[in-house]
Amino acid sequence: MPIRAYAAAGPGKPLEPFSFEAGPLGPHDVEIAVSHCGICHSDIHMIDNDWTWSRYPLVPGHEVVGTVRRIGPEVRHLAAGQRVGVGWQSGSCLECEWCVRGEENCCERQQGTIVGRHGGFADLLHVDGRFAFPIPEALDSAAAAPLLCGGVTVYSPLRESARPWSRVGIIGIGGLGHMAVQFARALGCEVTAFSTSPDKKDEALALGAHAFVVSTDANRMKDAAGSLDVLLSAVTARLDWPTWIGLLRPKGVLALVGASPGPLDVEVAAILTGQKAIRGSLIGGRPAIREMLEFAARHGIRAKAEVVPMRDVNRAIERVRRNEARYRMVLEA
Amino acid sequence: MPIRAYAAAGPGKPLEPFSFEAGPLGPHDVEIAVSHCGICHSDIHMIDNDWTWSRYPLVPGHEVVGTVRRIGPEVRHLAAGQRVGVGWQSGSCLECEWCVRGEENCCERQQGTIVGRHGGFADLLHVDGRFAFPIPEALDSAAAAPLLCGGVTVYSPLRESARPWSRVGIIGIGGLGHMAVQFARALGCEVTAFSTSPDKKDEALALGAHAFVVSTDANRMKDAAGSLDVLLSAVTARLDWPTWIGLLRPKGVLALVGASPGPLDVEVAAILTGQKAIRGSLIGGRPAIREMLEFAARHGIRAKAEVVPMRDVNRAIERVRRNEARYRMVLEA
Repeated sequence: MPIRAYAAAGPGKPLEPFSFEAGPLGPHDVEIAVSHCGICHSDIHMIDNDWTWSRYPLVPGHEVVGTVRRIGPEVRHLAAGQRVGVGWQSGSCLECEWCVRGEENCCERQQGTIVGRHGGFADLLHVDGRFAFPIPEALDSAAAAPLLCGGVTVYSPLRESARPWSRVGIIGIGGLGHMAVQFARALGCEVTAFSTSPDKKDEALALGAHAFVVSTDANRMKDAAGSLDVLLSAVTARLDWPTWIGLLRPKGVLALVGASPGPLDVEVAAILTGQKAIRGSLIGGRPAIREMLEFAARHGIRAKAEVVPMRDVNRAIERVRRNEARYRMVLEA
Repeated sequence: MPIRAYAAAGPGKPLEPFSFEAGPLGPHDVEIAVSHCGICHSDIHMIDNDWTWSRYPLVPGHEVVGTVRRIGPEVRHLAAGQRVGVGWQSGSCLECEWCVRGEENCCERQQGTIVGRHGGFADLLHVDGRFAFPIPEALDSAAAAPLLCGGVTVYSPLRESARPWSRVGIIGIGGLGHMAVQFARALGCEVTAFSTSPDKKDEALALGAHAFVVSTDANRMKDAAGSLDVLLSAVTARLDWPTWIGLLRPKGVLALVGASPGPLDVEVAAILTGQKAIRGSLIGGRPAIREMLEFAARHGIRAKAEVVPMRDVNRAIERVRRNEARYRMVLEA
C-alpha cells in the first residue's frame, strides 16, 4: 500500500501531495499510522536546503505521534495498537561508544528521520522501532508531538547543567522556550523568562516562570547581571553574547541549542572570570527521550500547539516561517 | 622588624630593594619566612599594570613556600616551624555561598596576595593563615612553589572535566603546560602534548605525554581532529579556536585558563555539533589546592624550575618575559 504524504519538490517549494511505496518492513522496523506531526524549524531548514543535504522530493516531519500498525519480526518492545512517538533521529549504529552509552545523538552514523528518507507529514511512517518511543497515557498526542524533537532539545541541556536549586534563565519564549520554561520549573529551578516581547509576560508566568524580563530593557538586564546558574538560549537569532554571559553567576553555563549565525564574540577573559562555560547541545539520546516523556507526563508538561489538519500543511508552515505560531504548529491526520 | 622585599616603583619598572613595616599580625595571620617564590606571568602583568589595578610600590610574588615563624592568636591549624605555601589568593569573605562550598576563588571579596598588598619577593610574608597550605613532606620546596598558583590553575580544570579514561590534550608545553601534562598523566588520562616547538617533544614525553603533536603541522593536526575529550589551553596567545574545537570528540571540553586576547571566534554550530563546551577556569579553591598538593606529592609531580637567588630577581623576570624559562623560574631566599 503506498504511503500518502506531502513533499517539497525542490528547495523552498510548497508541499504537494506525494505518494510512494515504502517497501517491506525491515526486521526492526515498525509501521506507524501517523495521528499528529509537529512542525519544527528544522523541517523548514530541510525544505529550504539550508544545510545543503536535502534530497527531493522531501517529506518533512520529525515530531511524529501515531499508532503502531505492524512490526518487523525482530521487534520485541512494541506491539500493534501501541501509541508511539518519533523525533529527529531514527537510526544509529547502536554499537559505537556513544550508542552503548545511550548517547545515540552523538553517533557518527546517526540517521535523521527526514534526511535521505521520508518523514511524518504522511499517513504512515516506516521507521526503526528502536527509535520509536511509547507515549505515556497522560500525554495528549497533539501536545506530545513537539516534545519528541523540541522537547528533548531543551530538556537535555537542562538535565545536564541545571540542578533543582539552580537559577535558570530561558532566552526566547517561543516554540522551544515555552517548553523549556515548563521543564525548568518542573526540575525544581528558579526560572526567569527572557523575551523581546513584553506581551509574553503573562504567558511566561503561567507556564511556570518566576520572573519575566524584557531583554531589550537595558535597566532590567543590568539588574539581572550575575544572577543565573544556567542560561538556555532557545532562539536561533544572533544574540549579544557578552551581555548574556554577563547574566551568569560564577560557574554558570550558557547552553546553546539553536544554530545562531555568526561567531561567539565573547572575550576569553569574560568566561575565565567567574569560571563560566558555553555548552552546545543537540536533541538527546534514547534514554533522555524516554525519561523526558515520563517526566513531562508526571509534571503535566505539554507543548502549546495550534492543531491544523494535515491538508493545511502549507498554511501551517507559513505561520512557522512568520513566527506566528503560539507556540508550536501540529498537523493532525 | 621591617620586611625586606623587592618592589617595582611603577609600571614596567625593574624591581628594587624595598623595606616596609608589616605591622602586627592579625588574629588569623601567620608570618612566613620565605624560602622560595615562583615567578608567574601574573606577576609580570601586575608589574606592568596590565590589569589597571596595580598599586606601587608593588612587591610581586604569589607562589610562595616558606616556614611559619609566628602565628596570630586565632590560628589553630598551623604552628611555627611548619612548611607552608601560599598562592594567588590570600583571602576571601569565608561566609558567602562560594566560600562555604570551598570555592573561595569565586568569592566576590577575594583578596589577591599581591593585589593592594605585598607579596612573596621578600624575606617575610604576613598572610591570612587560612590561605597558607601545609606542603607535604615529599615535595621539594623549589619544585612545589609553582604548584601554588600555576599548578592548581591547570589541576582544577582537569579535575573538573577529565576522568581517568579521558583523552586529554595540553596546548603549550611551558610554565603551565609542563605541569598540566604531569597532572593529566597522573589522573590516568591518555595525554597528547601540543606545541609549536618540535624540540619539546622529548621533554613532553618524559613528562608523561603519550603523544606529541607539532601544532603548526597541518597534517598532524588534521589527524588529531575529533580525538580529544578534554583540551586544556595552557597558553595566553590568541589561538585559532575553530581548529582546536575541531580536535574535540563529541561532548568534548575546551578548557581555558589563560586570558588569550580577542574573542572566541567559534561558530555556534561548531559547538552544537558534537555537543561541545568551552569552559573558563581560574586558580582553584582551598580544597582544590590542598588536594592538588597531596596529589602532586603522591605522584611525584614537580614544577621544573630554574632556581636563582632572590637578589637576581630582575634577571629571572627577564627570562620569563622572553619565554626562556624551562619551565618556571623560582627565586630562592
